[in-house]
Amino acid sequence: LSLLIAMDFNESIVLQPIGYVKTSAVGNDVKDRNFISKIELRKDLAQALDGLVEFSHIFVLFYLNQVTDKEHLPLKVHPRGRMDLPLVGIYATRTNLRPNQIGVTVVELIKIDGTTLTVRGLDAYDGTPVLDVKPYDSWDSKTGVQVPDWRKKLEEEKTVKG
Amino acid sequence: LSLLIAMDFNESIVLQPIGYVKTSAVGNDVKDRNFISKIELRKDLAQALDGLVEFSHIFVLFYLNQVTDKEHLPLKVHPRGRMDLPLVGIYATRTNLRPNQIGVTVVELIKIDGTTLTVRGLDAYDGTPVLDVKPYDSWDSKTGVQVPDWRKKLEEEKTVKG
Repeated sequence: LSLLIAMDFNESIVLQPIGYVKTSAVGNDVKDRNFISKIELRKDLAQALDGLVEFSHIFVLFYLNQVTDKEHLPLKVHPRGRMDLPLVGIYATRTNLRPNQIGVTVVELIKIDGTTLTVRGLDAYDGTPVLDVKPYDSWDSKTGVQVPDWRKKLEEEKTVKG
Repeated sequence: LSLLIAMDFNESIVLQPIGYVKTSAVGNDVKDRNFISKIELRKDLAQALDGLVEFSHIFVLFYLNQVTDKEHLPLKVHPRGRMDLPLVGIYATRTNLRPNQIGVTVVELIKIDGTTLTVRGLDAYDGTPVLDVKPYDSWDSKTGVQVPDWRKKLEEEKTVKG
């Protein structure tokens, strides 16, 4: 019985936004890791933020609502759409072309005023629904991280560009 | 108009599991960061995993389906239910008593056989619905992370216990 329940892939999970991203970033600004943006949470969640500001970094979970054709998602993509990088499974990338289009980004928490969070490095467009924020702690910061060559190449390019 | 759309807190976001956690961990075993467990994904997602194994660590997003009384969630909790730790907002903790009960854990990826991932350090119970897996990269590994004193205390206890 447990197995039957456990493998029901048609189970529906319904979520609702707790807030929205507010940013002046447009186009490629969104990928600029120094860009500062805001998250406006529901006013009734003010107390739920108590103590969060003592963390320097947080996870932001958001809904990648730009993807409209959910019926025809690819299983593989070229990372960032770049044909010079190998075709890999969507789960080897952070593409928004995925089932359950949830983005997760670690950002620097700058300040909290009421239910407005100011953060640095959130790669989400203006109006993006926010699903959750979580404190980032030492367990989340891994050492000895290994990544494929194509990913290293992307990181080196970013370093060169500053 | 954009603002009206952006602030609709009743918007529903519907997700479906891409797989389920398989683990022999029960009770506190789940918090043992050395425990090895499996994630069984939908068979049709095999190709979507191509290349993921080249990453040493991944994020696992899962649905904290143990929480039943979603109408009466607290705004504040004592971390881990411990009265010796301060009462803080739910968003300053990783409690499952939160709107949009999505857990995010960084795990070590040990191997992938077909659509079965073997991972170390997944703090989720057997049968937990999995929503997403994502590669963990250097951007996700932050240095200079600051956390509150109560969180440091928890981390020190963990170290003492091995």
